[in-house]
Amino acid sequence: MLITPGKLLAQINSPDDVKKLDQVQLVQLCDELRQFIIDNVSVYGGHFGASLGVVELTVALHYVFNTPHDQLVWDVGHQAYGHKILTGRKETFHTNRIYGGLSGFPKMKESPYDAFGVGHSSTSVSAALGMAAASKYLGQDRQHIAVIGDGALTGGIAFEGMNHAGVSDTNVLIILNDNCMSIDPNVGALKDYLTDITTSRTYNKLKDDVWKLLGKLSAFGKSAQEIVSKVENGIKSTLLSQSNFFESLNLRYFGPVDGHDVDHLTMILNDLKNIKGPKILHCVTIKGKGYGPAEKGNATTWHAPGTFDKISGEIHKKTHDTPQAPKYQDVFGHTLVELARKNDKIIGITPAMPSGSSMNIMMKEMPDRAFDVGIAEQHAVTFSAGLATQGLIPFCNIYSSFMQRAYDQVIHDVCIQNLPVNFCLDRAGFAGADGPTHHGAYDLAYFRCIPNMIVAAPMNESELRNLMYTAQLPRKEKAFSIRYPRGQGMMPDWRTPFEEIRIGTGRKLRDGDDLAILTIGHIGNYATEVCERLLKKNVEIAHYDMRFVKPLDEDLLHEIFTRYKKVITVEDGCIQGGFGTAVLEFMADHNYTAEVRRLGIPDRVVEHGEQIELHQECGFDPDGIERTVTELMESVSRTV
Amino acid sequence: MLITPGKLLAQINSPDDVKKLDQVQLVQLCDELRQFIIDNVSVYGGHFGASLGVVELTVALHYVFNTPHDQLVWDVGHQAYGHKILTGRKETFHTNRIYGGLSGFPKMKESPYDAFGVGHSSTSVSAALGMAAASKYLGQDRQHIAVIGDGALTGGIAFEGMNHAGVSDTNVLIILNDNCMSIDPNVGALKDYLTDITTSRTYNKLKDDVWKLLGKLSAFGKSAQEIVSKVENGIKSTLLSQSNFFESLNLRYFGPVDGHDVDHLTMILNDLKNIKGPKILHCVTIKGKGYGPAEKGNATTWHAPGTFDKISGEIHKKTHDTPQAPKYQDVFGHTLVELARKNDKIIGITPAMPSGSSMNIMMKEMPDRAFDVGIAEQHAVTFSAGLATQGLIPFCNIYSSFMQRAYDQVIHDVCIQNLPVNFCLDRAGFAGADGPTHHGAYDLAYFRCIPNMIVAAPMNESELRNLMYTAQLPRKEKAFSIRYPRGQGMMPDWRTPFEEIRIGTGRKLRDGDDLAILTIGHIGNYATEVCERLLKKNVEIAHYDMRFVKPLDEDLLHEIFTRYKKVITVEDGCIQGGFGTAVLEFMADHNYTAEVRRLGIPDRVVEHGEQIELHQECGFDPDGIERTVTELMESVSRTV
Repeated sequence: MLITPGKLLAQINSPDDVKKLDQVQLVQLCDELRQFIIDNVSVYGGHFGASLGVVELTVALHYVFNTPHDQLVWDVGHQAYGHKILTGRKETFHTNRIYGGLSGFPKMKESPYDAFGVGHSSTSVSAALGMAAASKYLGQDRQHIAVIGDGALTGGIAFEGMNHAGVSDTNVLIILNDNCMSIDPNVGALKDYLTDITTSRTYNKLKDDVWKLLGKLSAFGKSAQEIVSKVENGIKSTLLSQSNFFESLNLRYFGPVDGHDVDHLTMILNDLKNIKGPKILHCVTIKGKGYGPAEKGNATTWHAPGTFDKISGEIHKKTHDTPQAPKYQDVFGHTLVELARKNDKIIGITPAMPSGSSMNIMMKEMPDRAFDVGIAEQHAVTFSAGLATQGLIPFCNIYSSFMQRAYDQVIHDVCIQNLPVNFCLDRAGFAGADGPTHHGAYDLAYFRCIPNMIVAAPMNESELRNLMYTAQLPRKEKAFSIRYPRGQGMMPDWRTPFEEIRIGTGRKLRDGDDLAILTIGHIGNYATEVCERLLKKNVEIAHYDMRFVKPLDEDLLHEIFTRYKKVITVEDGCIQGGFGTAVLEFMADHNYTAEVRRLGIPDRVVEHGEQIELHQECGFDPDGIERTVTELMESVSRTV
Repeated sequence: MLITPGKLLAQINSPDDVKKLDQVQLVQLCDELRQFIIDNVSVYGGHFGASLGVVELTVALHYVFNTPHDQLVWDVGHQAYGHKILTGRKETFHTNRIYGGLSGFPKMKESPYDAFGVGHSSTSVSAALGMAAASKYLGQDRQHIAVIGDGALTGGIAFEGMNHAGVSDTNVLIILNDNCMSIDPNVGALKDYLTDITTSRTYNKLKDDVWKLLGKLSAFGKSAQEIVSKVENGIKSTLLSQSNFFESLNLRYFGPVDGHDVDHLTMILNDLKNIKGPKILHCVTIKGKGYGPAEKGNATTWHAPGTFDKISGEIHKKTHDTPQAPKYQDVFGHTLVELARKNDKIIGITPAMPSGSSMNIMMKEMPDRAFDVGIAEQHAVTFSAGLATQGLIPFCNIYSSFMQRAYDQVIHDVCIQNLPVNFCLDRAGFAGADGPTHHGAYDLAYFRCIPNMIVAAPMNESELRNLMYTAQLPRKEKAFSIRYPRGQGMMPDWRTPFEEIRIGTGRKLRDGDDLAILTIGHIGNYATEVCERLLKKNVEIAHYDMRFVKPLDEDLLHEIFTRYKKVITVEDGCIQGGFGTAVLEFMADHNYTAEVRRLGIPDRVVEHGEQIELHQECGFDPDGIERTVTELMESVSRTV
């Protein structure tokens, strides 16, 4: 259902329409855009606070710059709702994050205004710089703008990009959207520094003087170029020597400015457009700006609140008649604290995901033993390795798709040295509405090829607890990864007593006649359902929950391949190189033959949607598994 | 053969012996240590310039700090020769980098003085911070020191580490070893900045004043704590506001100091030992210091010159009676320029490896089309993606093991968006003397699970040229990776005319009777040798060079599995999830049965040595392959 936009916004079908407005109308457009976001997200859910915080910036950017010729890269991208609405996607905006609908992030395929696809943080400077270098080489006159949050700025690649930008002969403009937040409050030295310069009185005084000077000179009809040259000396002697971090990287620094003053923003952006060289504009914004409950309430809650009553600000909560299974992340969070109470060597580490991973539970109870290191997955892993050298037992929790960013550190700092670091990979398998950038598709494949690494996945909450319990006991192979999906488990009564799981052992859940299903992780519950359905049709198939992709339970596999000539493997992960493939390797190494069908994520980019919709699309939802069972049972083995 | 150390060095068997020396003897120890390194490396080869540059720092650190209780992390680690020699490895130092001998890098298993294993750059701050945080939690009184070069400082993880260190309640000491070099000259804005503060007269004046003040107060017998408190205000108002980059990150900045003045260094380190909080000491050093030819000559050449005449400074060159095959890297470098001359869309990108990858050839001929972005693999990949969005054709050259650091960017910025970026992975397979941190063992496994990615490897120079030629033609699947090993190819006459290779096609090199060997890449030449050996024994086996791991040549595989019941796959890469495994997946998907032996890098950490020694150890040198052929031919298939 299309939400009705305000009067002015109704006329905006592209940024060209924004440009036709008088400057004085921009405030109204901002109000209507903000209201449209509130109206939509309150009904359909999605990311919220971040987009409200950049409404003025979004309008000002499209007003001043010639998009899509000028190219805009929104770091992370969950703040780009306003951008989407202004760039021709107003009518389809209610399909945002829905299967087959708009992506929740900028996406090149979706619109020419989305100059670069995003999702993971901190990539915008590098991408915009690449575009700017290309334009320069191609002799094109176009602007390239990266909008990056203070949280995203802590990711190492952002620094790498700025270090290159500072010596580049490009006009790249970096806009620092400083709201002191990642999803959780931002942390780290740079954040403190940004707060310092934002709140510093002398600094602001100085800045005001410079901008006033710019304004005065502007009034005399001088070009921005001349103006800048006039204040160059003043800037050099004062502004530069103060605004040190960015100037150290040879980025000309402007700001801080109020990111909610759309008039001021358009003026500044117009000036900056004509200033050559790499530069950064520091905008101070408020996450959730303009919506009282979000602005005054908890910014983390309002990052992606789900649906809510837009009048009262009350977030809708699902009510249930029966007790519900917990989220896996909460089982992780509570279990970690339970274990840590008894084992004082346990330390928790999260890169900027305290609430997303439920590490915040430990951070609250044991603040000296749980570290939020900021958006810095690489550092999180090597920091954990450092802790492990001292005999501590780190549990480093990183979403599966974000772990890709610390792959070298896992190999180089943890596994080659055989250090006992436990990795808990949340959001493994399809992430759902966040789409392909966030799908945890590859971890089983990319982890199981590394030596000294244990790769496990629990089928339910109790198994997760027991794997975590096992992971804090002494062992020979040192790195231990446990992957589990986004969302709920299966067990309302999940606080089961701890039991050690012997590493590399799976379990037989059900005996069968002709065919065995081998599963890894939570997705195994689909197989359970299929077995039960088939039983009603008097078909008995076997089901094994393998629990470990590495080391594989070889005893169990010998049993399976001695007994079954037809085998199906199911995993919520890529079928190239993953769990099913590990089973094929075992077969080859032991000269077993059997017909094997591997179900999992196929070798293509799967878009966003509910997890079950995506499982269905890829043929490993219960129906898909059942279909494969039937086909395989009917097939006559081709013997070559 | 043990090189004879100087008189003083002869008595040094551990840092305890260093501590027994009088301060005045340190200069002599430095001279002898430097001479010992020169004597050894000139005869046995190895890294050179970097270790000479930190001789004084090494001696000062072990003189002042209580190693190994105090923990020293050498970033990258190729500068740690002096450290190894002082810490009990003088007698075995001539085995450095030799199979079974000392590692060329610090390694935890080798010595308790090696607090953390290194090899890839920029990890030291995170590792030392992890150790320091652990010590704090455990209530241990120990110091943690990270020694990091200005080149390594450009790697994003170093920034992530500093951003955390700045807000940590630890005493971690970062020593910036600033010599303006990576292996090639360092690049980037931060490097310019460091040069600025090092050469700034006012800055140095200020610094001298502060140190003089420290010295004076010290003379009055005040504690370092008091001294610091006294100069706090002075520092705040002057030093701090100037030494901006590091202070922005809340790291107390000291320096720059002359890294070759061992007396001054010991004094400063003694002071810093007692200053609480995270801090950085900026040392200016000269790579190759104290050895004329290296100091005056080309620092890149003297990074790892091979053996040389220590008197004349003449680097030994191998002479050959017959024309030699070129190094693969040079085939890459020259071919890229040949292609770029004809295709003006081609751009070259290297993260700090101009000479190592031979990208310097293009950088010289086409400086506006070839980018050295510094030690910043993540940025290199996303920057390339940005270039590709504008219709350019980037060739991004990254060593296989370093590509691990950009894994997320390859997935997230290149492959999900299906952007045409070409990756050339040098040093794929065993890297040789550099050892496990540098072995390119995993790329076939970690790349082939990503959608929209072509994975190829040439068997010789001509194939490399043709793959590169093919990679710059338009195509559907966009990311294209070409991996090749360290060292020489096979073809003295390598400048063959370009020919397109149809993507996903292998080639049959030899027909056979009972058994087929399938190979990928340069290692296929071993199979050729084995086939020839066997032919002399009247055994004819088939040999296929598959060329592509992804997409596999399915036509060829159908031919192979229809014809052969015994198959051997050979790859210079991990056998878990790699090329051989891809073949197993094909078999399963098409219900083929055959006995398959996969040869490649086994699932354990393989140490350093000559490439052939490591191939031998892992059973895929020619003898190993032949042995496997014989075994497989004699085996009677078990039918289950």
